[in-house]
Amino acid sequence: MSNITKVDHIGIAVQSIAEARAFYEKGLGLAITHVEEVREQGVRVAFIPTGESNLELVEPLAAEDGSVDGPIARFLEKRGEGIHHICLEVQDIEAALAELVAGGFRMLDKTPRLGAHGKRVAFLHPASAHGVLIELAEKN
Amino acid sequence: MSNITKVDHIGIAVQSIAEARAFYEKGLGLAITHVEEVREQGVRVAFIPTGESNLELVEPLAAEDGSVDGPIARFLEKRGEGIHHICLEVQDIEAALAELVAGGFRMLDKTPRLGAHGKRVAFLHPASAHGVLIELAEKN
Repeated sequence: MSNITKVDHIGIAVQSIAEARAFYEKGLGLAITHVEEVREQGVRVAFIPTGESNLELVEPLAAEDGSVDGPIARFLEKRGEGIHHICLEVQDIEAALAELVAGGFRMLDKTPRLGAHGKRVAFLHPASAHGVLIELAEKN
Repeated sequence: MSNITKVDHIGIAVQSIAEARAFYEKGLGLAITHVEEVREQGVRVAFIPTGESNLELVEPLAAEDGSVDGPIARFLEKRGEGIHHICLEVQDIEAALAELVAGGFRMLDKTPRLGAHGKRVAFLHPASAHGVLIELAEKN
């Protein structure tokens, strides 16, 4: 059986959660239920429950000097707004990482770090995942 | 309550399902359970169950003269392999489309058409969805 239990969330890069929410709320009838700053990533995230998964709107945070940087700001500059990553929930993140490393797949994080909701997460390198940025998040 | 019940699938554009499957099967321990040609879209799709959703690998089909065209071929040429669209399952696709049109959101399909698994589907215009290509699929 796979270690992967579900799609935890789909990360969507937006310039502004405040501007994007009208589409999700009025257009699709969904609701933002939780907003959180993940300062070490330089982002604010808004979660929109959709079945057992979430859509996660991710906007870049301005630093204290007003500058905006980090992976989401750079993604927006290069590609514009759009789907940024897929996060898959795993039962055991250590086992998942060990299997990927043993298989020769490239990782951005070889050991788990803390993500939104205090979950242990790790990102795979898109070069090993046919262009998809995949995050693994351990079930709480 | 929202008309949307879950993430039906995440569409991922690949050059070749045969080449991409090693990552999903050996790297992540997932399995392709269904492959289908959607000739009117010029694609072959492979479904990988992940919780209540699927990852959907989409590869371009060559036409009889060997040429490759269509939205996925063009996406691959422009952006390379990567996440292409999100499909949300709706209870009632007519009601969902009516609500979106009434809200002034742009649609690629104003009326449903047949997609994979014989489901009734419609695509929204990314310009109205902050850069995200969203498909709606009615629950069978």
